[in-house]
Amino acid sequence: MLIHNLSQLLTLAGEPQRGSELGRLKIIPNGAVLVRGETFEVVGTADELLAAYPNEPRFDAGGGAALPGFVDPHTHLIWAGDRAAEFEMRLEGKTYLEILAAGGGILSTVRATRAASLDDLKEQTRTRMQAMFRCGTTTAEAKTGYGLESASELLQMQALLELDGEGPLELAPTYLGAHAIAPEYKDDPDGYTDLLCRQMLPELRSWWDRHAAGRPLPFVDIFCETGAFSLEQSRCVLSAARTLGFPLKIHADEFDNLGGASLAAELGAASADHLVKTSAIDITALAHSNTVAVALPCTPFGLAQAQYTPARQILAADGLLALASDINPGTAWCESMQFVIALACRYLKLTPAQAVAAATLNAAAAIGRSDRIGSIEAGKQADLIVLSVDDYRHLAYRFGGNLVKHVVKKGKVFTNAE
Amino acid sequence: MLIHNLSQLLTLAGEPQRGSELGRLKIIPNGAVLVRGETFEVVGTADELLAAYPNEPRFDAGGGAALPGFVDPHTHLIWAGDRAAEFEMRLEGKTYLEILAAGGGILSTVRATRAASLDDLKEQTRTRMQAMFRCGTTTAEAKTGYGLESASELLQMQALLELDGEGPLELAPTYLGAHAIAPEYKDDPDGYTDLLCRQMLPELRSWWDRHAAGRPLPFVDIFCETGAFSLEQSRCVLSAARTLGFPLKIHADEFDNLGGASLAAELGAASADHLVKTSAIDITALAHSNTVAVALPCTPFGLAQAQYTPARQILAADGLLALASDINPGTAWCESMQFVIALACRYLKLTPAQAVAAATLNAAAAIGRSDRIGSIEAGKQADLIVLSVDDYRHLAYRFGGNLVKHVVKKGKVFTNAE
Ligand SMILES: [Zn+2]
Ligand SMILES: [Zn+2]
Repeated sequence: MLIHNLSQLLTLAGEPQRGSELGRLKIIPNGAVLVRGETFEVVGTADELLAAYPNEPRFDAGGGAALPGFVDPHTHLIWAGDRAAEFEMRLEGKTYLEILAAGGGILSTVRATRAASLDDLKEQTRTRMQAMFRCGTTTAEAKTGYGLESASELLQMQALLELDGEGPLELAPTYLGAHAIAPEYKDDPDGYTDLLCRQMLPELRSWWDRHAAGRPLPFVDIFCETGAFSLEQSRCVLSAARTLGFPLKIHADEFDNLGGASLAAELGAASADHLVKTSAIDITALAHSNTVAVALPCTPFGLAQAQYTPARQILAADGLLALASDINPGTAWCESMQFVIALACRYLKLTPAQAVAAATLNAAAAIGRSDRIGSIEAGKQADLIVLSVDDYRHLAYRFGGNLVKHVVKKGKVFTNAE
Repeated sequence: MLIHNLSQLLTLAGEPQRGSELGRLKIIPNGAVLVRGETFEVVGTADELLAAYPNEPRFDAGGGAALPGFVDPHTHLIWAGDRAAEFEMRLEGKTYLEILAAGGGILSTVRATRAASLDDLKEQTRTRMQAMFRCGTTTAEAKTGYGLESASELLQMQALLELDGEGPLELAPTYLGAHAIAPEYKDDPDGYTDLLCRQMLPELRSWWDRHAAGRPLPFVDIFCETGAFSLEQSRCVLSAARTLGFPLKIHADEFDNLGGASLAAELGAASADHLVKTSAIDITALAHSNTVAVALPCTPFGLAQAQYTPARQILAADGLLALASDINPGTAWCESMQFVIALACRYLKLTPAQAVAAATLNAAAAIGRSDRIGSIEAGKQADLIVLSVDDYRHLAYRFGGNLVKHVVKKGKVFTNAE
């Protein structure tokens, strides 16, 4: 199939973009792509491709701008229930303790998620996946983490693998048993850390070998933050995971600077995420590594906080920057990477081109898949989106809507109804 | 037709909600409405209505929450072209003067709009209206204002009347010839003010009598702001408009406090809009009037400015507060009142209930139509929306998406495709 009539074809050809290189979109005006099966075979101008492949079935994209499908490299996609009541209490001025007393906070989602069946979890998560896909996300990382006990975490993992199998949205799974201290261990965080290292992670490994043999191992992630896991505990869990062969991620510096970003760089984690209170030393450590810095602007936005990830400093230090939604039921229920881009331009002071590269190619690097997705190049998986407008900058300039018209996933076209 | 299976029916029955009354949603759990023609005939519980009208055709709303269609009482809906390049230049750190030198700013939209044909204007505007309608706006105010000369302003007005006739989104037109000083008068703002008072407004009046006889007169609005019209000039234009019989609106205190809000109260304007730098004296003057204070949170958001309308002070003073999108090509291209609600809860510190009332019943009051729309009551026009979720608070809790499933306009059901 030959997809043509693309006003701008943003290929993002090449390697993930570090520092001042971020934003090299490699735009082909009036572009076209030849797709065979699930793969891009030829990328060029419409003139070239229409002449070279006169008998190929054609798909007229209507003059919209095209870019790689968004990759959302940090999501808490799977949970049960919601926390709308807690959100309202916060706005009414209730204190954190009053909200906890009313059953709010992350542990309310843990209760609902532990109680949910596999089918329930899949059904509630599927609705979010469909919304994400309609907004142009073609691959999303997806974390467990609302179980905080082995069986529930593994049930979430099973649901994620099954949902990934359903498609069209592709998932990159992450095990986040270390999302918070399990309620059973609230007075013994070291005990829960030990449990993770000695029991839950080895169980994950053997579960994976039984249930997902042949698939690459999932990421193991931890919430390194005051009130969750200390730097020492984070080192312990991530080291144990690494020993078991898992690739790593970390939640670092959302509210306090504990040194998690430097730990990520030291351990060779795929990414360090949040990075709001990150120090200059940590930024330098990250920039000297291949660990991707993932900014999550929906979270400060969701909480109406003024401080965002110091993206321009990360770029000035020559770091690798990506963007993600952080979709979760507590602080940021947002399915749209378009909105993430609109936020990133306003609050992280990225240009539209930088934000697009951070939401596609660099986001793919943050989940270790930039060899396969994140750009429109011959040999890569045929994931792209076509906008209803002819200028990609509208993704940043406008906000609150959905400018995606067609989503192409593994070569198959899905069109958003008007 | 009997619309039933509504988890929550937010009727907002009663008068526009002042001060601490804001947020009285009057929710009927498991509600239903009987619609005849374009009008709500009976509003009650599903049990009551299903029993009372067993033979009525039924529409099963799928268990979603229902509320009055959003009223967007401040939009610059009609323009030609876009300013994505200018947005990018701002992010790249270009100064205001550099942007002007590159042809940016409001006058670039004036150039494009003056050059557009009636059909062009309608076509570009229609796309935005469709997006607004899909996001649940059933009535929108719509301002001219990118002509700044009589013929172009009247062509925009003609387009708005024709688009209103097309439906389904209903428009309440406003004449904003006083949006900025016309470029031809840049060194003579008093001259343009005089032109408005002596020529353009009388021309509007006679045009209206010829082209829209029998319709209520449109609002006349002015941008009272440093660099646009002074308080004195605003008084002159609004007084001339009032003498000609036009109802009034004003843009006040977006960047500077010139006293426009008090002027609006004094002249009995329907609304005073923006109100970011509004003084305590102006807030009191507004609160003692029937002039609705319209907050436009998309504008500071679009510009990444930290200061928003002091909504809680307006309510504490017992004012009438409404919300609007301010959709425009310079600072806030946003079609979604759902996003306005999400912003208002986070940055104006409204509760979800307050934001919903400000975006429906009070927004109707801001365009002088609260007798006919803005609530779900017997005798009112049958405009309502059904969400894909069973709790209206998700409108505020989530962001960046579209939770509207069905839009009912004048009794006719429109369903958003998945
Ligand atoms: Zn997270
Ligand atoms: Zn305005």
